[in-house]
Amino acid sequence: METVSENCAFGGVQGVYRHASASTGTNMVFSVFVPPHEAGARLPVVWYLSGLTCTHANVTEKGEFRAICAELGLIFVAPDTSPRGEGVADDPEGAYDFGLGAGFYVDATEAPFAAHYQMWSYVTEELPALIAAQFPADMARQSIMGHSMGGHGALTIGLTLADRFRAVSAFAPIVAPSQVPWGQKALGGYLGADRAAWRKHDAVALIEDGARVEALLVDQGGADAFLEKELRPDLLRAACAAAGIDLTLNLREGYDHSYYFISTFMEAHLRWHGERLGIPPRAGEFNRVTCLC
Amino acid sequence: METVSENCAFGGVQGVYRHASASTGTNMVFSVFVPPHEAGARLPVVWYLSGLTCTHANVTEKGEFRAICAELGLIFVAPDTSPRGEGVADDPEGAYDFGLGAGFYVDATEAPFAAHYQMWSYVTEELPALIAAQFPADMARQSIMGHSMGGHGALTIGLTLADRFRAVSAFAPIVAPSQVPWGQKALGGYLGADRAAWRKHDAVALIEDGARVEALLVDQGGADAFLEKELRPDLLRAACAAAGIDLTLNLREGYDHSYYFISTFMEAHLRWHGERLGIPPRAGEFNRVTCLC
Repeated sequence: METVSENCAFGGVQGVYRHASASTGTNMVFSVFVPPHEAGARLPVVWYLSGLTCTHANVTEKGEFRAICAELGLIFVAPDTSPRGEGVADDPEGAYDFGLGAGFYVDATEAPFAAHYQMWSYVTEELPALIAAQFPADMARQSIMGHSMGGHGALTIGLTLADRFRAVSAFAPIVAPSQVPWGQKALGGYLGADRAAWRKHDAVALIEDGARVEALLVDQGGADAFLEKELRPDLLRAACAAAGIDLTLNLREGYDHSYYFISTFMEAHLRWHGERLGIPPRAGEFNRVTCLC
Repeated sequence: METVSENCAFGGVQGVYRHASASTGTNMVFSVFVPPHEAGARLPVVWYLSGLTCTHANVTEKGEFRAICAELGLIFVAPDTSPRGEGVADDPEGAYDFGLGAGFYVDATEAPFAAHYQMWSYVTEELPALIAAQFPADMARQSIMGHSMGGHGALTIGLTLADRFRAVSAFAPIVAPSQVPWGQKALGGYLGADRAAWRKHDAVALIEDGARVEALLVDQGGADAFLEKELRPDLLRAACAAAGIDLTLNLREGYDHSYYFISTFMEAHLRWHGERLGIPPRAGEFNRVTCLC
């Protein structure tokens, strides 16, 4: 693992790192915020999966998560959204919603994407092992959140690995990719035409097929341009109601799909995660001055 | 004035606007955050001046000011750092520290820069008039802050127009441009070789020449690569001590010159401004949900 950058922030360290991934067969870049902590402490880990076109950098720069992570003592990990680099196949027309920046958190089985697009394995196996080895992480206390395509990732991973994640939440997630254009293009392209293979990468289908978590938190902007065509929180609401999953679905009138929306509600999501990770609601003032660097 | 974008954020509106500036003879872009407020209310205004290479966008995306401005009820204005566009002269070698993105908040007198580089007039006269006319601003309650070159701008403008600004603070400011390479290049290039003309654009010289404010707040990263060569907070400390200005100079070990540093201490600066703008230390919880949009 190579350090791309480390900056003091909110008494902790915001780092960006690069490593050669066995899953994707490429170099992968990710960011980790380690909050201020006592020497030897092991801290809970919040995973944040980003949306279409994003890298680790979007949430790292615009997510406004560090103040709360510093207060609550949370490690915050932001992976990239796809493999990148020479030889990595992209959308034939270079569209933003497939290929580079659009890995959809699946292990592709279709050529030419199967060669590198192994984002499920990367995010659920390889990167967690690296985080456990390289950072003061308590891997018995993990939670996961994401935005849009990354909300889809957070929901499907959280539902599939329900024993691993104590909290699962999302900002404007794609809840039923099998039923919307973004998802149909991606799942078809990466997994092939057989829709049976899509169901374990579709949060609504997973719930229909029996996957369970105790609770879900979703915030959705009411002025989000993708709400009705791509995101469809109504489908998640119906699935959770039928399955008895305690879904808190907050429709935020006026808010759009951007980081202005995400950053506004980041604090509420992180406090919700914190409670479920066993952290008191107010962990107390943190010391911004004495930096870990 | 044309709206480039408006996004709901923290219960208020983060806007970006464009207008034809008479001062610079160019179109100018700036951002304004208007926090949630009662209909008809007039709100105090915090000016934020950015550093070399920046536009309004850097602090708008990375400054993490909206949560606190929403809580305290502060309008936050971020101008650009220079004129831009066709016919605007740049550094002959395209250097980052002069010309485009590096207006240094002066009215240039030297050709070819005098034609458009009129940032002092723009920031102190033209843009305030536009803000007063277009936003729910209480122009009797203004304060000013900035970063690096913008810290220089905030200090020199705050010291010169001490009756206008109730609070003046800076992150890693250039405190004595006449004595450091960045400043000597800029003031020489924009104002000419006569150093007498530089003194009113040099915070330390202004204080030596009798300018006074009651108090100043400066935060400076101890790991800032520009600290000793360009920023020189020691010179401001000496000038304030000699003049009886109550300077709070916080040296933050480990922190660098980036927005990771600025965002960490933004809350403390805004609360310090808020107190001087007559706002109770805790104005109370704001409603993120009911957006102004």
